[in-house]
Amino acid sequence: MTEQDRKTIESCFRSLSAAASKCEPNLGEALARVLQNPGSLIRPEIVLEISRAYGLSETHATDLAIGLEYFHTASLLFDDLPSMDDASSVAASPAFIFEFGDAGAILTALALINRAYALDVAGRRASVPDRQSRACLTLSGIWCGRLAEWPEYDLHYAMLPHDRQTTEQIAMGKTVSLIRLTLVLPAIMGGAPASEFADSGAYRTLLGVSVTRSLTILKDVIQNSDETGKTASRDLSLDRPNIALVIGIGEPSSALLV
Amino acid sequence: MTEQDRKTIESCFRSLSAAASKCEPNLGEALARVLQNPGSLIRPEIVLEISRAYGLSETHATDLAIGLEYFHTASLLFDDLPSMDDASSVAASPAFIFEFGDAGAILTALALINRAYALDVAGRRASVPDRQSRACLTLSGIWCGRLAEWPEYDLHYAMLPHDRQTTEQIAMGKTVSLIRLTLVLPAIMGGAPASEFADSGAYRTLLGVSVTRSLTILKDVIQNSDETGKTASRDLSLDRPNIALVIGIGEPSSALLV
Repeated sequence: MTEQDRKTIESCFRSLSAAASKCEPNLGEALARVLQNPGSLIRPEIVLEISRAYGLSETHATDLAIGLEYFHTASLLFDDLPSMDDASSVAASPAFIFEFGDAGAILTALALINRAYALDVAGRRASVPDRQSRACLTLSGIWCGRLAEWPEYDLHYAMLPHDRQTTEQIAMGKTVSLIRLTLVLPAIMGGAPASEFADSGAYRTLLGVSVTRSLTILKDVIQNSDETGKTASRDLSLDRPNIALVIGIGEPSSALLV
Repeated sequence: MTEQDRKTIESCFRSLSAAASKCEPNLGEALARVLQNPGSLIRPEIVLEISRAYGLSETHATDLAIGLEYFHTASLLFDDLPSMDDASSVAASPAFIFEFGDAGAILTALALINRAYALDVAGRRASVPDRQSRACLTLSGIWCGRLAEWPEYDLHYAMLPHDRQTTEQIAMGKTVSLIRLTLVLPAIMGGAPASEFADSGAYRTLLGVSVTRSLTILKDVIQNSDETGKTASRDLSLDRPNIALVIGIGEPSSALLV
């Protein structure tokens, strides 16, 4: 990502601040806090790259990119809730939920999701109707998995076999779903045939899994909270699936090569 | 609503059951439970009426109608969370959150919202792009208010003046937002001019406010939980805005006539 791209993406990520400053004060403050911390922005970066490869306009690519990043940010806020992973300081620092409460975190996440859907629609606007429909169906299916279904498996992991296959599937489901969307949505809008998705997806999934896993899941086991931004070893204490706990830190997961 | 309309709407409301039966078992069971209880379905009824008045197809009208009903159902699930209204048995009975937990209720609501957005997009598909854009912007603005902003005012009511104007605004915001969408969205897709919205909105808002308020807010004060489906007098004990507590039960609210 060029320096200019990074600046553009960060600026667009923070663009919701103007709307946040006009809304209910507690929601506005919570949104502003989240928007202050854009994170790695690897998802918008991938969207821009794929969109350029398919000749989409920068405007539509940026709408799509920021929309998916808001989806991601919202999913982190939900993950951190006491009733979910009960972690802290992943989505925003200092510990967002301690400051704004469960309700504040939920309402902030819902506002982000609402904006994300609007940006997704805006990003698809220039595509032909057939591609818009395919993109909408794809978003709906994969995002529902990431947002609702994989977290359920996560929460009920205690009732599932703690083997490598199960653990990998759940970890992949939660970690890779949004990375898949960053690849597939701009490709659909650019008119990519189904076979091309698979090739492109394999490469980019590798990239995404490598980056997000190495930054979050593996560090969860081997480092402490201050360094990782996620409450250390939370998965172990809650009996939640953590791929590194199952396969050991030194061994690469075959899931990384899918 | 004719008997046939009611059957069609109920059948479409439950149509997510097929998908729910294939997803993660806990999510599937929670979704099935919610889908078993369609409620009054006044929102889909209004959407169908307005859509027919503007000549929209039954298919698109039904997608839009069920999408808005899923938004409504999801908003009730969020409202009932312990960190929000801490009520019970509004969205589903017997007390949904006691059975599925906070996380189960949140994930079920998110799955419904995801489906609602997809249905909204499907419902708009046949409209010209300009109307689609206006409908999307309208949905985004009003729904964000209902889902995130008005609940924040609700939660922080203790810090606001407990006068009639403030209380009415918050109650109206939470209660009427989705009713407004049931009127405005099909009208936009049908090409209604802005002036026509206002007239139509005034009439239908009166209808919506009358029905939903009389069924929920007023009964919250004067009846017990078993009869209302909402934990009785919850608003009073939590210091949340309740229009009936401010104006008294016998006096009609001027907000009803807006």
